[in-house]
Amino acid sequence: MSRKRTAKNTSQSHWQEVTHEVIFEADTPAGKWFDVLLIISIVLSVLAVMLDSVSSIHAKYSSFLYAVEWFFTILFTIEYIFRLLSVGRPLLYAVSFFGIVDLLAILPTYLSLLIPGSRYLIVIRVLRVLRIFRVLKLVKYVHEAKYIKQALQASLRKITVFLFAVMTLVIIMGSLMYLIEGEVNGFTSIPKSIYWAIVTLTTVGYGDISPKTGLGQALAALIMILGYSIIAVPTGIVTVEFSRVQELKISTRVCPECSAEDHDSDATFCKYCGSKL
Amino acid sequence: MSRKRTAKNTSQSHWQEVTHEVIFEADTPAGKWFDVLLIISIVLSVLAVMLDSVSSIHAKYSSFLYAVEWFFTILFTIEYIFRLLSVGRPLLYAVSFFGIVDLLAILPTYLSLLIPGSRYLIVIRVLRVLRIFRVLKLVKYVHEAKYIKQALQASLRKITVFLFAVMTLVIIMGSLMYLIEGEVNGFTSIPKSIYWAIVTLTTVGYGDISPKTGLGQALAALIMILGYSIIAVPTGIVTVEFSRVQELKISTRVCPECSAEDHDSDATFCKYCGSKL
Amino acid sequence: MSRKRTAKNTSQSHWQEVTHEVIFEADTPAGKWFDVLLIISIVLSVLAVMLDSVSSIHAKYSSFLYAVEWFFTILFTIEYIFRLLSVGRPLLYAVSFFGIVDLLAILPTYLSLLIPGSRYLIVIRVLRVLRIFRVLKLVKYVHEAKYIKQALQASLRKITVFLFAVMTLVIIMGSLMYLIEGEVNGFTSIPKSIYWAIVTLTTVGYGDISPKTGLGQALAALIMILGYSIIAVPTGIVTVEFSRVQELKISTRVCPECSAEDHDSDATFCKYCGSKL
Amino acid sequence: MSRKRTAKNTSQSHWQEVTHEVIFEADTPAGKWFDVLLIISIVLSVLAVMLDSVSSIHAKYSSFLYAVEWFFTILFTIEYIFRLLSVGRPLLYAVSFFGIVDLLAILPTYLSLLIPGSRYLIVIRVLRVLRIFRVLKLVKYVHEAKYIKQALQASLRKITVFLFAVMTLVIIMGSLMYLIEGEVNGFTSIPKSIYWAIVTLTTVGYGDISPKTGLGQALAALIMILGYSIIAVPTGIVTVEFSRVQELKISTRVCPECSAEDHDSDATFCKYCGSKL
Repeated sequence: MSRKRTAKNTSQSHWQEVTHEVIFEADTPAGKWFDVLLIISIVLSVLAVMLDSVSSIHAKYSSFLYAVEWFFTILFTIEYIFRLLSVGRPLLYAVSFFGIVDLLAILPTYLSLLIPGSRYLIVIRVLRVLRIFRVLKLVKYVHEAKYIKQALQASLRKITVFLFAVMTLVIIMGSLMYLIEGEVNGFTSIPKSIYWAIVTLTTVGYGDISPKTGLGQALAALIMILGYSIIAVPTGIVTVEFSRVQELKISTRVCPECSAEDHDSDATFCKYCGSKL
Repeated sequence: MSRKRTAKNTSQSHWQEVTHEVIFEADTPAGKWFDVLLIISIVLSVLAVMLDSVSSIHAKYSSFLYAVEWFFTILFTIEYIFRLLSVGRPLLYAVSFFGIVDLLAILPTYLSLLIPGSRYLIVIRVLRVLRIFRVLKLVKYVHEAKYIKQALQASLRKITVFLFAVMTLVIIMGSLMYLIEGEVNGFTSIPKSIYWAIVTLTTVGYGDISPKTGLGQALAALIMILGYSIIAVPTGIVTVEFSRVQELKISTRVCPECSAEDHDSDATFCKYCGSKL
Repeated sequence: MSRKRTAKNTSQSHWQEVTHEVIFEADTPAGKWFDVLLIISIVLSVLAVMLDSVSSIHAKYSSFLYAVEWFFTILFTIEYIFRLLSVGRPLLYAVSFFGIVDLLAILPTYLSLLIPGSRYLIVIRVLRVLRIFRVLKLVKYVHEAKYIKQALQASLRKITVFLFAVMTLVIIMGSLMYLIEGEVNGFTSIPKSIYWAIVTLTTVGYGDISPKTGLGQALAALIMILGYSIIAVPTGIVTVEFSRVQELKISTRVCPECSAEDHDSDATFCKYCGSKL
Repeated sequence: MSRKRTAKNTSQSHWQEVTHEVIFEADTPAGKWFDVLLIISIVLSVLAVMLDSVSSIHAKYSSFLYAVEWFFTILFTIEYIFRLLSVGRPLLYAVSFFGIVDLLAILPTYLSLLIPGSRYLIVIRVLRVLRIFRVLKLVKYVHEAKYIKQALQASLRKITVFLFAVMTLVIIMGSLMYLIEGEVNGFTSIPKSIYWAIVTLTTVGYGDISPKTGLGQALAALIMILGYSIIAVPTGIVTVEFSRVQELKISTRVCPECSAEDHDSDATFCKYCGSKL
């Protein structure tokens, strides 16, 4: 899928074009290698964040994980700068979804120098895991993702109506249980009773709150059987949509100007900013 | 979707017609704005009821929530009176499902002046959440709702047979567990054992009662695998019905006389009371 | 659906025929009334057995429930005798599935005179609930039941293979968890660990046994995701079968000789014993 | 389905051929009897391993179960030797999946003489249960297994994408809950919080860790409803694949040289090693 760009495209110098090809695309060998390295880096850096939160590991390997964190932060910073430079319209990229995710992947570590020890900053770094999605195209799984996405979009409105009915049900059922069981049996307020109704209807069933009276258990049994039966509704909706949706042919190309995706395989210009692909 | 009503329709004066258009319909801008305001009022008033049940919030904001409650009650009372006045046949509306829900939304607050502090009155007010369903048509989700409703109605009898078989199963399984585990392990009576069987078959699994003996755990494992497998039955039934049902074109019009809904888009007269739409 | 029986059918006298029509069939008004009364009797007698097992109710109403039990036992005994008399081949009925269930519905109460207080006898009486299935035909739900039955039979072999794979999985996973978690964390033996694996895979999740070590929790997470995903298999199998199966036209007639069911609506002779229907 | 092998197949003597027919195939009466005996032996030996892990049974029947273990080990050893001898290329068989499983079924017992009392060796013996799969063909359920396998393979990539999205979701949700609930409420580390998110999303719901704060319970309710809804995705995918897959005609033949399976019913030569079937 080699593409020639004409000299007319004056907003991009040659090295920008090459860098864009490597960083944003997955069609060339260099682009593929870059993506593989990126996935490994992301997984390792997220793993480091996770392990650092385990107190026994933190006690032993705290300084090593600190070094790992800075290593990947600097790596991702370099990558972020190159992304900004190689894209034709850096601002458009910077405010795009992945642009913000890329920034959030590096910012917390720098901020931790100013505000030391903030738990919030630590957790934001976990969002790096979202960056894997941009590399997903590498492994040719993009067709399957589009297929699922399309079926879900087609059934979104129907599932919204279903969830709306479920919400009404759990509000009424939860309030009823608050009345029947009362505060002595753990149903201390209507919101907590609604929480219990959701736990029961979705068949999760923690057991942290459970009905004690006979009437409460009878109503709970009703909610369970209801939840067990109506799960058929979203399943039926999505299954029908899946059987309708046709698998699509989608290119993995990314616009060199605005880094937008989703271009058809026969597209010559970006459908969002009009620049040549 | 503007409609002209002829002067023949003598049972309604002009202001009644306009009020009906605004309150009951969603086709005009005024009608849409009314629906949006109504949804916000319903959500806020239900939220107030919920929050008031949380003891820590009740301790602090009790008097504020009391004021909020009376504000919405008076608002809904005015709305209820206008609904009664604008409808051609007020009695038919008053005894309809939504007529009763509208009354239940305001009655408890007035009754609480006579019978102070009753928990039952507080909870009835949560039923206001049902009023949202009448506004559902606003957001054009009515087609999806009809689609789900139709598929569920078509599969109702089959699911009834399925639930009947499930009930027989849990009665027999529950009784068996009562025999095997006995009162020392928490299976204190047959109804409680049936409750446990439902909790297990629907894969909720609170864990408030769980088998202790080897034989009981083996039977429990059997019930779990059964419940895990037979969930395929309602799902299969509903999925097949969903694939059969065609999406329908349904008007959002409401009869000005009896406030009945579900009129076909080409209907000129109400199919329930015969008055002109 | 009135049927004339010719005088040739000499094995049955006229009153036998009439009694058979009333007790076994649901086509005549008398037959329908009999079925309605039977359902009410069954439900009430099963309810009495259930309530008697609740110690607080037993303490208060023990003698009343004892009288109720004997009332229904005598009623069902009379019914059983009439069934035996009105059927052409009583022995064939007596050893049939429903013949045995009918006997089990009355035997325990008589036996309790000889062996007082046996819990086992009490529970056998719950099996009366199975008798409702013979009356199911009354309410015209028999088509739906056949429909579900046929789809399940068609998918039986595939689901057996699926359950076999699931059993292998839980045996290996359970043994692994026994190794990882060990007796200190509640996984006291391999059978108990397999029980836990079933509780987890079927997403029941009691929480009476749950992994404590990191490795155990990782494996448990794997089993959960597996169980969450493979539930698609029985669902998919049954859904496909449901879409294949056509709804059938089935008569509710019962053979006057051997009380067999499942006769096609155009059948003139019993397909099991050859006697005229 | 009798097959004649020509004299050209010189790599096998007559007794090898007969032994191969009995041990590896299920077409002859002798082969069927061998398979039935093998299944019984496997089930009994796995049961013995399981029961031995129950401390109360171990205390009483330890020496009996030890004898049983050695009986089956010697039996399986003889079988293993005959398999090696009757196969044309023993090495190919020895390193195949079932070759390794067959070896693992006997090795632990011999090793336990050198390293007494190792729990790891005990559990490896449970893997014998996998040997049942090779006998599965006996009962003609092989078509159903292929059918399920094919549908799962066709949906593998889509389900991988789905599980990948689920993993990202639980990582982010788990980290959020770690932030919200914190260590005092049982969410001691990010990995543990992710474990909780999986327990909740898959609707298992042990209840060993459960949110205590209002915000945490609200987020938990969101995860539950999400998990309850998105189970529709794998179900929809697999159902669509099931409806596509046609049931296949597959032979139960096994290559006499390399013991490979999956040969088409019209195949004359092994598709893996080229030897005559």
